[in-house]
Amino acid sequence: MNFPSKLIEDAVTEISRLPGIGKKTALRLTLHLLKQKEPVTTALTDSLLNLRKNIQYCEVCHNISDSTICSICEGNKRDKSVICVVEDLPDVLAIENTNQYTGLYHVLGGVISPIQGIGPDELKIESLIKRIDSPSNETPVDEIILALPATMEGDTTSFFITRKLKDKNIKVSSIARGIPVGSELEYTDEITLGRSILTRIKYSTE
Amino acid sequence: MNFPSKLIEDAVTEISRLPGIGKKTALRLTLHLLKQKEPVTTALTDSLLNLRKNIQYCEVCHNISDSTICSICEGNKRDKSVICVVEDLPDVLAIENTNQYTGLYHVLGGVISPIQGIGPDELKIESLIKRIDSPSNETPVDEIILALPATMEGDTTSFFITRKLKDKNIKVSSIARGIPVGSELEYTDEITLGRSILTRIKYSTE
Repeated sequence: MNFPSKLIEDAVTEISRLPGIGKKTALRLTLHLLKQKEPVTTALTDSLLNLRKNIQYCEVCHNISDSTICSICEGNKRDKSVICVVEDLPDVLAIENTNQYTGLYHVLGGVISPIQGIGPDELKIESLIKRIDSPSNETPVDEIILALPATMEGDTTSFFITRKLKDKNIKVSSIARGIPVGSELEYTDEITLGRSILTRIKYSTE
Repeated sequence: MNFPSKLIEDAVTEISRLPGIGKKTALRLTLHLLKQKEPVTTALTDSLLNLRKNIQYCEVCHNISDSTICSICEGNKRDKSVICVVEDLPDVLAIENTNQYTGLYHVLGGVISPIQGIGPDELKIESLIKRIDSPSNETPVDEIILALPATMEGDTTSFFITRKLKDKNIKVSSIARGIPVGSELEYTDEITLGRSILTRIKYSTE
């Protein structure tokens, strides 16, 4: 595309660096901003600059936070004996939205992926081990729930963490994989269906 | 969604104001920027602020430009007797990419849409009339090509401009509507197919 203006071209180039946004969408967004009043653009740029400069990560769980300890780790009503290990912030938000979980989190910041050059040392795995062992814990950690993606990388990470926790006297579990609620058997892929038979849940007959 | 940080919440709110971007995509983009180094964010915000502050519109055709007269209007190789009337900048880029058109453009900045409160006075229609009549034209304008969207609003605008140009001794044409190249007849909607029969092209039998 030949742009009639260097300014437009620069903006389109920068916006299309964002994941999932191509040149055409970037141009549409740029023209949208041009049609709005100037404060719309400055509110957007201010919020991004502010975020980039002032963001902090919770020292305990590595979740994004406004302070050194995040509101979940500080919360009095949370069950501090359970830690749910997730890949990143959206997973914390998704689990919080279920209203089914009251424990703490541990944000790894990714999963082990040799292809992308992400090894265990790039992730917050060592910090998880230290956190479990920490003598300053008011409540001892009782269970680790692995809530990592159901991919090769997620499974590798789960396996790695499970091995690391082997010698500690601690329950390790994973969220259930199976057929999503509301789905038909016949449309489920074979791997999911196969796994859901292997990991079937026993009903009580009493 | 409850965000663990006000900074994230602000950024997500601002990004999701952009058209076609919801809260989930906004969060994904925000987290992407957080994972990149700081210059990625500042390059983006700088390009947007720069654009918003320094952008100009061509005084002749109202296309976006880096100077008071755009490169197309100033170009020596362009046919100045033909003006193609379009809705907005992406249309100029699309037509330029065809390499089939060497004339000038006139960017209306929208189409007549009573529902959105856009009347003829909000568009650069009067400026088009003045441009045709201007005594400073080196080459008199010979033809106006209407390349507006094939929608009710586009057709209304085309009709309005055609009426305005009635008394001027000037050819007015519209880009052809019909079946896109490579399409099958049976999958074309009835209105397009019906119109393509009415506006059929005569083949020479000589």
